[in-house]
Amino acid sequence: MSWSLAVHGGAGTPPEGTLDRAVEAQRREGLKRALDAGGAVLAARGPALDAVCAAVRLLEDDPLFNAGRGAVYATDRSQRMDASVMTGDRRAGAVCDLRRVRSPVLAARAVLERSPHVFLSGTGAEAFAAEQGLELVDSSWFADAVRLAQLEAALVDGMVVLDHSGRTAGDGEAGGTVGAVARDLSGRLAAATSTGGMTAKAPGRVGDSAVIGAGTWADDRSCAVSATGHGERFIESAVASRIAALVELSGLDVVAAAEQVVLRELVDRQAEGGVIAVGADGRLALPFNSGGMARAARHPDGRVEVVAFLPERARR
Amino acid sequence: MSWSLAVHGGAGTPPEGTLDRAVEAQRREGLKRALDAGGAVLAARGPALDAVCAAVRLLEDDPLFNAGRGAVYATDRSQRMDASVMTGDRRAGAVCDLRRVRSPVLAARAVLERSPHVFLSGTGAEAFAAEQGLELVDSSWFADAVRLAQLEAALVDGMVVLDHSGRTAGDGEAGGTVGAVARDLSGRLAAATSTGGMTAKAPGRVGDSAVIGAGTWADDRSCAVSATGHGERFIESAVASRIAALVELSGLDVVAAAEQVVLRELVDRQAEGGVIAVGADGRLALPFNSGGMARAARHPDGRVEVVAFLPERARR
Repeated sequence: MSWSLAVHGGAGTPPEGTLDRAVEAQRREGLKRALDAGGAVLAARGPALDAVCAAVRLLEDDPLFNAGRGAVYATDRSQRMDASVMTGDRRAGAVCDLRRVRSPVLAARAVLERSPHVFLSGTGAEAFAAEQGLELVDSSWFADAVRLAQLEAALVDGMVVLDHSGRTAGDGEAGGTVGAVARDLSGRLAAATSTGGMTAKAPGRVGDSAVIGAGTWADDRSCAVSATGHGERFIESAVASRIAALVELSGLDVVAAAEQVVLRELVDRQAEGGVIAVGADGRLALPFNSGGMARAARHPDGRVEVVAFLPERARR
Repeated sequence: MSWSLAVHGGAGTPPEGTLDRAVEAQRREGLKRALDAGGAVLAARGPALDAVCAAVRLLEDDPLFNAGRGAVYATDRSQRMDASVMTGDRRAGAVCDLRRVRSPVLAARAVLERSPHVFLSGTGAEAFAAEQGLELVDSSWFADAVRLAQLEAALVDGMVVLDHSGRTAGDGEAGGTVGAVARDLSGRLAAATSTGGMTAKAPGRVGDSAVIGAGTWADDRSCAVSATGHGERFIESAVASRIAALVELSGLDVVAAAEQVVLRELVDRQAEGGVIAVGADGRLALPFNSGGMARAARHPDGRVEVVAFLPERARR
């Protein structure tokens, strides 16, 4: 048996001409660092849960991704974060609307491992994280001038006035939600997702990244999935658990299942985004229906790929 | 085509000797009123969404159920409520950690119909509800001496110190979470769920009732489901959407699918509770693996059943 690991740094369709090659190169480095951190855990026979948390934690600290430091802003100019983790024995932890926890994914993990609950929100989640000894920081830790400018532009454009199915300010952004999926050398699966949500979201908005079954799912019988995209539509399609259901109940392999949901069902619902998924056999799937998805993967055969938003992939 | 409707008022296993026949009779009346309110909508050719909201709203105002008025207390002696709704075209709305909105289910419905988002938490959700003209009340509106006594007893018993998979203070309570599922005369499905959560929960704890896919799901292709039980375990099993997946992908009918999840899979995970579900053909399923489940149903053939916790059903 071999190990496999994939990480993502968000899916989207960056508006024409907005991709900066230097930033993309840095983002690629961030993805590679995260893959290496998770891979080191797995190569040392560590558990999949440790690996996905090690990878996601680094991406949270990296201001070029929309999670932790560098998260996008809500309409009230606050940064509010969601995260979740799940292991293949179907134990889960999730947090939403965090403003002061440096690593939301570690807060979600603490919920999984040390709370009687599975899902904690807001100040209650922050109080639990503090009790558990996790690092709380001043909100200035997360601040980011580029993200704040994105908010101001969205407010000027009136993008906060959205219809239920409409386009959102976050749709086209490069550098989004982060996540990881892994299979370890014992065959256990895990998934983790962390995000700042969408630019100009309402305060208190919770996206799929905090919703077990939508943004994150893991089941050793089928697959582990971390999603990135238009969170509202992803919740309404229960994206991550649906991919697992297609594997378990319909007998699709993980690639076919992930592609059916991302390339067909989500497209039918005008929901832009993608997923990373790992099957029980370690096979990875990384489909997206947007212009690009920042991602890195170490396949079970040892092959490694690292792709930020490549200009030549945009606007297909 | 005929219409059908089911409501529930929570599943559980009341500790021996704690059932009060007079209270159970009142609870039965509350269930009947809710069934009648939803039924009136459906008989007048109204939409399933209107019917489930009409039913749940009445149960929220009834202090004998753990939703809205009469909600259970968190460890900090606050009452914090979760709710969600979904229609069979897979549009959803959810709210969590509400403290001042009289009808959480109407707040969830407002999110579905009038927000660009699907899921709002805490004060952000309350601010949205207020903007939408929903009734906000002082927290004293929800207060309940019996529920407060349950909290004090739980605190004395040390039940707030729970392990991740352990028994919770809410497990045995009669009069729990409320919900409704309906099929209207146009064949549309809808589901709604509302709760105060579990006694002695951590402030900010979110249960399955706010999680689309776990506590609530609706898909016109398969079924609509509202769940009640140990919310943490229900989230980790994505209960409501799994039942729909078994119908859609495995070809089970709604009764077989609901029973497989509630009577087999949840039992295997030591997760106590039940669901109400309505299939695309209007057929109802009302399985529970606990001592009882308060419920009322109007089947497609016109047959009506109303069952609070009957002592003779307890402890099977």
